[in-house]
Amino acid sequence: MRYLVGIQYKGSAYCGWQRQKNGLSVQAVVIEAWRALTGETIVLHGSGRTDAGVHALCQCAHFDTQSALPVDKIPLAMNTKLPVDVRILWAREVAEDFHARFSVKAKTYRYRLYWGAHADAFAYDLAHHVVKRPNVELMKKAAEVLVGEHDFKAMQATGGHVKSTVRTIYSIDIQEEGNQISITVRGNGFLYNMVRILAGTLLYAGWEWLTAEDIAKAIEEKDRTALGKTLPAEGLYLVSVEY
Amino acid sequence: MRYLVGIQYKGSAYCGWQRQKNGLSVQAVVIEAWRALTGETIVLHGSGRTDAGVHALCQCAHFDTQSALPVDKIPLAMNTKLPVDVRILWAREVAEDFHARFSVKAKTYRYRLYWGAHADAFAYDLAHHVVKRPNVELMKKAAEVLVGEHDFKAMQATGGHVKSTVRTIYSIDIQEEGNQISITVRGNGFLYNMVRILAGTLLYAGWEWLTAEDIAKAIEEKDRTALGKTLPAEGLYLVSVEY
Repeated sequence: MRYLVGIQYKGSAYCGWQRQKNGLSVQAVVIEAWRALTGETIVLHGSGRTDAGVHALCQCAHFDTQSALPVDKIPLAMNTKLPVDVRILWAREVAEDFHARFSVKAKTYRYRLYWGAHADAFAYDLAHHVVKRPNVELMKKAAEVLVGEHDFKAMQATGGHVKSTVRTIYSIDIQEEGNQISITVRGNGFLYNMVRILAGTLLYAGWEWLTAEDIAKAIEEKDRTALGKTLPAEGLYLVSVEY
Repeated sequence: MRYLVGIQYKGSAYCGWQRQKNGLSVQAVVIEAWRALTGETIVLHGSGRTDAGVHALCQCAHFDTQSALPVDKIPLAMNTKLPVDVRILWAREVAEDFHARFSVKAKTYRYRLYWGAHADAFAYDLAHHVVKRPNVELMKKAAEVLVGEHDFKAMQATGGHVKSTVRTIYSIDIQEEGNQISITVRGNGFLYNMVRILAGTLLYAGWEWLTAEDIAKAIEEKDRTALGKTLPAEGLYLVSVEY
């Protein structure tokens, strides 16, 4: 049987999704919980990596199993074995040629930030704090130039190794509520650190440090240095994966 | 000079407000931050204790100082020395006969809980999870019998040592938003664990395990065992202190 599971995690305590030599990963705790539950050691394929401290409202991962555990019992059973900051939201059977990574049609990420003189004692690991209020209308205007198919090489951090840096962003939705701002980006795929660089670039636009034209030019010229900084992990959420 | 400060903290990492032999307290880190800033060791008087894991949207505390640091510079200066989960929100000068504990006129606490099959990976230290949805209308009806001046001995945990167990609750406001419920209680003072017992009692009412009449009778008879359980610390917030 091949199962796909939806996994929610607060990434603060983890070295990221992917199993690492040093540090505890979300992938490792899910594998360990399944082993504690069934005695079986699975190979768990995620839809993609998330970095240390990055959160997931719903990461997806598949695995093959011989276990007789009914698929609808998996979430509650697994959640008794998992740490409180990792939850299985749902589980379903998928075809044997389904792959959590290669079958992805689209992904949605969100970057959360808030502004104000003081950082919030409750938000330090859930959103990024900035002192100065950005102009959200300017952020929205800058976001427009990024929507569509582009070569996003300028928005790839060093360490990314992919054949093509062309990606399609389907939408960028920016919401402001009180002193909180969220940037939700849906696309067919994202380069290494792309969402954090995109969020930093829109923030710079909101501070009038970059214009929409500057950003379009930097994308065109594949010039990472002409864009905003990579914002920190605590504000980033993998929202959903579409198949 | 006597200063009053507003302190926000996420209590998860602390043994509570009060300095203890074993464990790090919020009081200790504020005293230490002031020492790091000015070299001066202060005596810090809080409005009252909060237990391990309990949060504060705004705790108040006063101290006397010889420091020349202007009062309006205290929040930003202190926040550079404090851990990310403790923030000074504001500071102001108060009269020399003002006392953060003895001058209190009213306090407001909030208990946050949410229901659903799964606990939330982001809420485990910020709100209390229950599986079964309580009936909020029944909770509101039960809350009505608690408002006013009563002897709340039935809502005092063992370990409370006070002369009188008579307190006045000015209001109990219950809000429901999606699967989240908050119980906000304003009163002239609270007994040890009173808000957590009150929240547990209203939850039992919401599950139809207790009626408003049962609760009124238990209060009248000072019978702790006839009320709901003490809910855990993670859902409790000291919202504000009035002078």
